[in-house]
Amino acid sequence: MKKGCPYGTHRVIEPKGALPQPAKKIDNTMEIYDNEILIDVQTLNIDSASFTQIKEEADGDVEKIKEIMKGIVAERGKHQNPVTGSGGMLIGTVAKIGPALEGKTDLKVGDKLATLVSLSLTPLVIDEITEVRKNIDQVDIKGQAILFETGIYAVLPNDIPENLALSALDVAGAPAQTAKLVRPGDTVLVIGGAGKSGMLCCYEAKRRAGVTGKVICLGHSEKSLAIAKRGNIADYYIAADATKPVEMMEKISEITNGQMADVTINNVNVPNTEMSSILATKTDGTIYFFSMATSFTKAALGAEGVGSDVNMIMGNGYTKGHAEVTLQILRDSKEIRDIYEELYA
Amino acid sequence: MKKGCPYGTHRVIEPKGALPQPAKKIDNTMEIYDNEILIDVQTLNIDSASFTQIKEEADGDVEKIKEIMKGIVAERGKHQNPVTGSGGMLIGTVAKIGPALEGKTDLKVGDKLATLVSLSLTPLVIDEITEVRKNIDQVDIKGQAILFETGIYAVLPNDIPENLALSALDVAGAPAQTAKLVRPGDTVLVIGGAGKSGMLCCYEAKRRAGVTGKVICLGHSEKSLAIAKRGNIADYYIAADATKPVEMMEKISEITNGQMADVTINNVNVPNTEMSSILATKTDGTIYFFSMATSFTKAALGAEGVGSDVNMIMGNGYTKGHAEVTLQILRDSKEIRDIYEELYA
Ligand SMILES: NC(=O)c1ccc[n+]([C@@H]2O[C@H](COP(=O)([O-])OP(=O)(O)OC[C@H]3O[C@@H](n4cnc5c(N)ncnc54)[C@H](OP(=O)(O)O)[C@@H]3O)[C@@H](O)[C@H]2O)c1
Ligand SMILES: NC(=O)c1ccc[n+]([C@@H]2O[C@H](COP(=O)([O-])OP(=O)(O)OC[C@H]3O[C@@H](n4cnc5c(N)ncnc54)[C@H](OP(=O)(O)O)[C@@H]3O)[C@@H](O)[C@H]2O)c1
Repeated sequence: MKKGCPYGTHRVIEPKGALPQPAKKIDNTMEIYDNEILIDVQTLNIDSASFTQIKEEADGDVEKIKEIMKGIVAERGKHQNPVTGSGGMLIGTVAKIGPALEGKTDLKVGDKLATLVSLSLTPLVIDEITEVRKNIDQVDIKGQAILFETGIYAVLPNDIPENLALSALDVAGAPAQTAKLVRPGDTVLVIGGAGKSGMLCCYEAKRRAGVTGKVICLGHSEKSLAIAKRGNIADYYIAADATKPVEMMEKISEITNGQMADVTINNVNVPNTEMSSILATKTDGTIYFFSMATSFTKAALGAEGVGSDVNMIMGNGYTKGHAEVTLQILRDSKEIRDIYEELYA
Repeated sequence: MKKGCPYGTHRVIEPKGALPQPAKKIDNTMEIYDNEILIDVQTLNIDSASFTQIKEEADGDVEKIKEIMKGIVAERGKHQNPVTGSGGMLIGTVAKIGPALEGKTDLKVGDKLATLVSLSLTPLVIDEITEVRKNIDQVDIKGQAILFETGIYAVLPNDIPENLALSALDVAGAPAQTAKLVRPGDTVLVIGGAGKSGMLCCYEAKRRAGVTGKVICLGHSEKSLAIAKRGNIADYYIAADATKPVEMMEKISEITNGQMADVTINNVNVPNTEMSSILATKTDGTIYFFSMATSFTKAALGAEGVGSDVNMIMGNGYTKGHAEVTLQILRDSKEIRDIYEELYA
């Protein structure tokens, strides 16, 4: 049996020396290397930006969607949308475990799991697409995939419906990072706090900041805020436009008596909110940017420009135990679970 | 006297509600608000990317350079290059201090200072350009500028020549952040360690990691590494291409016996080095990205893709005491001072 690299570079066909994610083409033969896991795939959860593009290209036609998806995998050996660059996740069952992983992994053949590394780096074969669920970006297939040694995953729990678990796991990094950052007594601002990841962050922040802390859920539309309020996740709910730094700063200043936030979590899905995040946070506070619309230069030069010593962290989608932390929220809060079932499952 | 906002928004003409840096045009009348400082400017140190562009546009002609620079300030009220978006710094003398700053600032009229906020947000008037020093990006002028209440600066020391101080202050954020991150015994990797900011970071890392720590200076060309070695700033000097993650990881693995770095400081001036930084660092280590070529999404998705829990910090150009930390290096190390005088003054 062939020996593999922990990062899967042994599967990269083009360009040589690259990692599987930036690679143009990877080897998707389903014969495993000694440190790989073979998965019988059940469902692909396509990244929202990617699936929107595919649906448009196919004019909403299901057969055309299937054709495009198969074409992507045939060309690249993985489901990485060539337009958006993004992937998604999958659910499946462990079919084989490479011998080099013995004693290293808790997985066993037959376990049902969700992969938490992107489909944009996962070797995949689609034999047949059996169902396309257009409005929740999910596609059932017959096919197989490979998980690399460093590939992260979560074994699916028995007490949470699969679709619900998948939706929450998609943003699992955010609440778990929040758990690591927030200390008792902190004032925490969650920008985009009424969104999918934002609500989980608010809940986790409230749990960590405790009765002596303050959690501010900042949303854009009153409609989302009304839903978030039902979740009972924050001490304050305010509507503001995070692309308007001065306006937002004034609102946060009012709520905090000019103290501003110790920790700010940015979960928006629009650009140009770096400066608001900086001005709303104490100069020795911390900002965690989860939003993929964050610009490195705007944040770095922005903080310097106003003489803020704030600690700015790039939202790593992974942190140890992130799946457990996130699924636990769905167990602990009936309110959030209800909202999630209504909106995302 | 009119009351000003600490961030200078009172000077923004267009678009309204913006901060001075992203603004298209700011008010550069030299009548101060109550919380502003008026500076008699002596020298502008134009950002390297900006000055290169201006020199090209002017075909190297000094009179044409002057004309372009005056044109920029006339149009925007600040020296923000419309092509590169960047500014620079200035040296000057305090001419007036707004009454609202009394007791808040240590500055007094007559102090000579360097502003450490970008020229891209500093109200400026150029009466005359008296000298253009083309090869070190410096321009002497007669003119005035405004420092906002939150604008950072450093009083120039008596024991270090002005040009030398200016060069070091330009990258002051990097060594000062290094000082905050590195603990005794740490293995520290500085990528681009033989460059202008990199050498200062190596020196500061060595000082903090101490005899039980290890500092690795990673450069690109043997030429720069040979110069860096004269500075006696690291335990290891290695040449590698940081855009090749696997190659670089193997080199760092060899030096660290597979342990990898506790702290990695990224000071390169080229794109696509996020993945190398991640793979060279322990999964519970820290990466500080100072390079302005850093891509947020490449870093965030890259770490997730290889299941690394690494803490990734965006290089805020400012941190408390950054000027002092940086100038002290030029006092403590004769070797670095000599190299800096040779290369950057
Ligand atoms: N780092 C990672 O690994 C990772 C993984 C997954 C997702 N993400 C990123 O996380 C972000 C959020 O994802 P999500 O699924 O939570 O998205 P979401 O459910 O669409 O939430 C986005 C929230 O931002 C709010 N918002 C939009 N514009 C705003 C503005 N101008 N001012 C204030 N709030 C505004 C929205 O408010 P309304 O509801 O009122 O419109 C919404 O509540 C995305 O950028 C996504 O790319 C990152
Ligand atoms: N965050 C902030 O506030 C701030 C402020 C100022 C500057 N910066 C940024 O800091 C960065 C460094 O600035 P600097 O003045 O120190 O630049 P510099 O003196 O030009 O140093 C860059 C270094 O990177 C090395 N390098 C280039 N390509 C490489 C590769 N492929 N692999 C490994 N090393 C490579 C170069 O090596 P060779 O010498 O061998 O070519 C050089 O030593 C820039 O990106 C700049 O934008 C940030």
